Amino acid sequence: MERVGHGNDIESEGGGYVIDGKILQRNSSEVSEREGMIREPLLRNRINTTSQIALIGANVSPIESLDYEYNQAFVAYVGCNLLLAVAAACLCAYVAPAAAGSGIPEVKAYLNGVDANAILAPSTLFVKIFGSIFGVAGGFVVGKEGPMVHTGACIANLLGQGGSRKYHLTWKWLRYFKNDRDRRDLITCGAAAGVAAAFRAPVGGVLFALEEVASWWRSALLWRTFFTTAVVAVVLRGLIEYCRSGKCGLFGQGGLIMFDVSSAMTTYSTPDLLAVLVLGIIGGVFGSLYNYLVDKVLRTYSIINEKGAAFKVLLVIIISLLTSCCSYGLPWLGKCTPCPANLKEPCPTIGRSGNFKNFQCQPGHYNDLASLFLNTNDDAIRNLFSSGTEDEFYISTLLIFFAAIYCLGIITYGIAIPSGLFIPVILAGASYGRFVGTILGPITDLDVGLFALLGAASFLGGTMRMTVSMCVILLELTNDLLMLPLVMLVLLVSKTVADSFNKGVYDQIVKMKGLPYMEAHAEPYMRNLVARDVVSGPLVSFSGVEKVANILHALKMTRHNGFPVVDEPPFSVAPELFGVVLRSHLLVLLKGKRFSKEKVVIGEAILQTFGAFDFAKPGSGKGLKLDDVEIEEEEMEMYVDLHPFTNASPYTVVETMSLAKAAVLFRELGLRHLCVIPKTPGVCSLSLN
Amino acid sequence: MERVGHGNDIESEGGGYVIDGKILQRNSSEVSEREGMIREPLLRNRINTTSQIALIGANVSPIESLDYEYNQAFVAYVGCNLLLAVAAACLCAYVAPAAAGSGIPEVKAYLNGVDANAILAPSTLFVKIFGSIFGVAGGFVVGKEGPMVHTGACIANLLGQGGSRKYHLTWKWLRYFKNDRDRRDLITCGAAAGVAAAFRAPVGGVLFALEEVASWWRSALLWRTFFTTAVVAVVLRGLIEYCRSGKCGLFGQGGLIMFDVSSAMTTYSTPDLLAVLVLGIIGGVFGSLYNYLVDKVLRTYSIINEKGAAFKVLLVIIISLLTSCCSYGLPWLGKCTPCPANLKEPCPTIGRSGNFKNFQCQPGHYNDLASLFLNTNDDAIRNLFSSGTEDEFYISTLLIFFAAIYCLGIITYGIAIPSGLFIPVILAGASYGRFVGTILGPITDLDVGLFALLGAASFLGGTMRMTVSMCVILLELTNDLLMLPLVMLVLLVSKTVADSFNKGVYDQIVKMKGLPYMEAHAEPYMRNLVARDVVSGPLVSFSGVEKVANILHALKMTRHNGFPVVDEPPFSVAPELFGVVLRSHLLVLLKGKRFSKEKVVIGEAILQTFGAFDFAKPGSGKGLKLDDVEIEEEEMEMYVDLHPFTNASPYTVVETMSLAKAAVLFRELGLRHLCVIPKTPGVCSLSLN
Repeated sequence: MERVGHGNDIESEGGGYVIDGKILQRNSSEVSEREGMIREPLLRNRINTTSQIALIGANVSPIESLDYEYNQAFVAYVGCNLLLAVAAACLCAYVAPAAAGSGIPEVKAYLNGVDANAILAPSTLFVKIFGSIFGVAGGFVVGKEGPMVHTGACIANLLGQGGSRKYHLTWKWLRYFKNDRDRRDLITCGAAAGVAAAFRAPVGGVLFALEEVASWWRSALLWRTFFTTAVVAVVLRGLIEYCRSGKCGLFGQGGLIMFDVSSAMTTYSTPDLLAVLVLGIIGGVFGSLYNYLVDKVLRTYSIINEKGAAFKVLLVIIISLLTSCCSYGLPWLGKCTPCPANLKEPCPTIGRSGNFKNFQCQPGHYNDLASLFLNTNDDAIRNLFSSGTEDEFYISTLLIFFAAIYCLGIITYGIAIPSGLFIPVILAGASYGRFVGTILGPITDLDVGLFALLGAASFLGGTMRMTVSMCVILLELTNDLLMLPLVMLVLLVSKTVADSFNKGVYDQIVKMKGLPYMEAHAEPYMRNLVARDVVSGPLVSFSGVEKVANILHALKMTRHNGFPVVDEPPFSVAPELFGVVLRSHLLVLLKGKRFSKEKVVIGEAILQTFGAFDFAKPGSGKGLKLDDVEIEEEEMEMYVDLHPFTNASPYTVVETMSLAKAAVLFRELGLRHLCVIPKTPGVCSLSLN
Repeated sequence: MERVGHGNDIESEGGGYVIDGKILQRNSSEVSEREGMIREPLLRNRINTTSQIALIGANVSPIESLDYEYNQAFVAYVGCNLLLAVAAACLCAYVAPAAAGSGIPEVKAYLNGVDANAILAPSTLFVKIFGSIFGVAGGFVVGKEGPMVHTGACIANLLGQGGSRKYHLTWKWLRYFKNDRDRRDLITCGAAAGVAAAFRAPVGGVLFALEEVASWWRSALLWRTFFTTAVVAVVLRGLIEYCRSGKCGLFGQGGLIMFDVSSAMTTYSTPDLLAVLVLGIIGGVFGSLYNYLVDKVLRTYSIINEKGAAFKVLLVIIISLLTSCCSYGLPWLGKCTPCPANLKEPCPTIGRSGNFKNFQCQPGHYNDLASLFLNTNDDAIRNLFSSGTEDEFYISTLLIFFAAIYCLGIITYGIAIPSGLFIPVILAGASYGRFVGTILGPITDLDVGLFALLGAASFLGGTMRMTVSMCVILLELTNDLLMLPLVMLVLLVSKTVADSFNKGVYDQIVKMKGLPYMEAHAEPYMRNLVARDVVSGPLVSFSGVEKVANILHALKMTRHNGFPVVDEPPFSVAPELFGVVLRSHLLVLLKGKRFSKEKVVIGEAILQTFGAFDFAKPGSGKGLKLDDVEIEEEEMEMYVDLHPFTNASPYTVVETMSLAKAAVLFRELGLRHLCVIPKTPGVCSLSLN
């Protein structure tokens, strides 16, 4: 019973709880963690209770006589978890609903062009950080990696819009990102930094951004993300160095390589290859099943969540209770095993982390199931990946843990807390791999730890469908370069198998959330359509010099973000497309009131009357609204020369262009508007975003 | 004097010389290598000469008395090198001139859309493989990595066009690649496989293809290249396992990680960081200087090379003599040092590879300069990267080696042999880094071997300007994950510094070769132009149903690859663009003679009369020529319905579109043709390729 309250933890109260929070362990030490974060008398009292249990647990008394104390411990455990869960849920439900979930699908959608307001707002950032800390600390089967990607993107967005005016945090020199393209690049860099920090995998971060997050890539972005993650790596490295003495809690654990398995043997034969192939195939099936079930559960939850914030919190409470019961109850099924001799590490461990947990066992024994359940996620993974420990876990233990984590992972994603998918998938995959490795032990030379790594790879490939980035992240996590060919093989096999069933989990979530994500490849049905077929509604266009009333009417009546400007006689010989003017620019123009009484071309001079940043892209949801513009009656009949404010080089397609090819154009160039021009004169506009 | 002829090498004559050839060492063992490859009585004789020298070298006789024998050894050394050099040069000059040089710029240009005939022809493949073997064996300061990328691309091209009809090697099932896009993808995979095999870096190969080689990338390509390199890794791994017993010469050396430095210490402090920054800055300067000088030398050489094949061979002979003199002569400047005690490896080494070479020294001593010069490239790099050997090399040694390799590398690239740039750059960079490390020894804790690695990174960043791929390749070469932050930093610094001087070496070569490479970003001057400004010459267009004589005339008169098809009354109300028809398709059409007497629309039915592969893209230079088409007099007045053969959805831009934006469209979508349409009806075509 080393669960809680070993006194020396109280020393770490002093500071640095944010860093602590980033690597909060899942189970065993919420109480001491909680001390660091929430200082309430109520919780202080409870420490006495728990340390009492700890004292009893250290006694060599028969288990039966401790029933009362174990019940008390259970109540304390469940209570702490519940408190943290409710805190996370309240933040998510009442402050920033957009912070729930992984965040990767949202960032992906944003970079695809979905400019939803709340996705990257400062409030989302705040809730994401603290919600994630509470959620991970609250014992849920969730990761911190997805939320960290979202956090990185939020910070990048905040920097990109020059700080937050609402919270009085603005920097002048950050205004260089006041255009859509550079801001998107910055957010891509932010997402890469998130992965780099979460997995301590700088190159993996770059590749993750490239393979999974970004919809639109240019060569300059490669070294920009690379620069970002290099800075992350250097800073991480410095902090780990600084924290070497243990003053930052669990932060420095594992160093720059979180799960070092490089010492393991790495020769393998043909039967091993076959075993790995089978592992990959089954992993792919389980991965796609995971996606399928997550999708079903999400759909169910969204019905509950729609009923209101209270229901969201209620759902979180139920899942929290269930998780607590599982992780406290299931270890009782584990057998007590005597500690193996000749160990370098302490056994059983009394502390926050370690390979062998005592739980209810006698001294000198450990409970293998407790070593997985009542441990931090990182340590559980480390235990599963550990090599040369064939006999540490029973097959039944691995099976129970796998089943529990697989199911809990599925039902946890979708509740109103920030929840990453990586850790559940890696945990389930590693236990699955170790299970297979233990079964195949007699016929293969590969270490069970390596099987666990390959199992994790197969699950990651099966759910997330990434290849290169997953491979590099796993490499950087485990420092096991010699296993690279096998990891590559497993990832490819499981991805291929899973791809034949359904889509990647992030794509599924994007689709389920109803975000209008645009795929990289054209859908088959598009081949039978032409661009003309999808042009929506009646065309609203302006002439080169337009009446104020018409512009105002068009802005009111439609929600288009771009309008074609068509020059008509007397400004041109025949009606011809001059370009596309943006809604946001029109609003600035109306607000600026540069009107003229006559219908005449004024020219570029009018641009001088605006400041350099007037037309800059504002932060999400911060732009001018139509209500901000007040036009007086007499101004309604005046004219605006739109020519200087119009993009005279819009991309265009002919109306008979195949829709598939138009879609490719749209996506590959990262467009927001596309003009569809007819074969015979006259103009109509298609605005897909 | 362990240079040549230790008897046991003769045993390896029996077989496997191709595998041997792939990792041919640069200097010390050409004679025994040569035995394996060319069995001529002449060479047999010479072995006796050299083994005589070897015997004398093993004697403990004073150096002065051996002058005559050393001269004989020099002649044998130079002679062998010269023979191999001439063989490589003759292959390059007379059989396939396109095989000279690195090959990476050519592959890059091909993937950018430059479909030059010889770049990927079977003869180029043949010369590239054997020329590279001869060149590397002939003691030149050249690498095998670039040629291997080119080899990979050539093999991919051969597969992509369904084999070679000329050499009667064709496979039916390979015809699925009979279109431009899939073939480009396959060649990208081939290039990735080349890097993966050369550096044993599967992930590095994927990234190299992405960052340096490919102009056009799609998400599916990521896992395809990944799959390719995974197969490469598994096969490599299998072969290394098979060759473990040493039966494949030097192939298995280094295992899957060629230069394992993972054992080195990896803590570093702020002064170390500063030292690394300075290293990166100077490395960047040297790198850009390298590019500048290579460019100058290439321009000089191209004047010589243009004079004829004999001049090419002559140039190779001169450089070969110079290189041989340097690598045989300079080690005499090295001092003899007693072998350090407590070594695991033998010292001095008698054999093809090793850390300590005896050369002219007494037994128990080694010559440090000879250990670099008279060694394989791989071993020289391994020596420089080796850690814990601070005193192995004198500062003067490193300086001499650096200067020699830097200069030889510059004057060697551009002669008529297949020559990679990686190895010279890594060698020069590593000796530079080790030199700096030795100087900074007193003030830094970093190992000199790590400095050598960082120096190599700085030179690679300074010349090739790759970031992520270089970083991963270095990681996979050295297995030194903990140094990743420093390597990233150095790469970024040196790239940034070098970018302010000139372009990357491959870009320079592409430009110097006059290949019409299209940059990813638009040139500044393009912003002031519109698409209309660059439309070349008078427009040649066809009507929907065109007279055979007109088509034939247009094909004869112009070299355009695409022609707009404009429907005119009576087939449409007003003249309008129907689409673009390709030159190659027109040729097939004329050859097929599906003509009609009347000017009528025949429709899709005509397509049925052609086979599935008639319109498939033929191999480079294998397509129908205009001369192949014979049209009789009466057929000239007949008509062809072009509609079924026309691409009815060409990408178009309006003539007033900014040229910069048109260029972006062209490049990002990987286009070959772009229609420029006027604002007022009528059509004109721009064909940039």
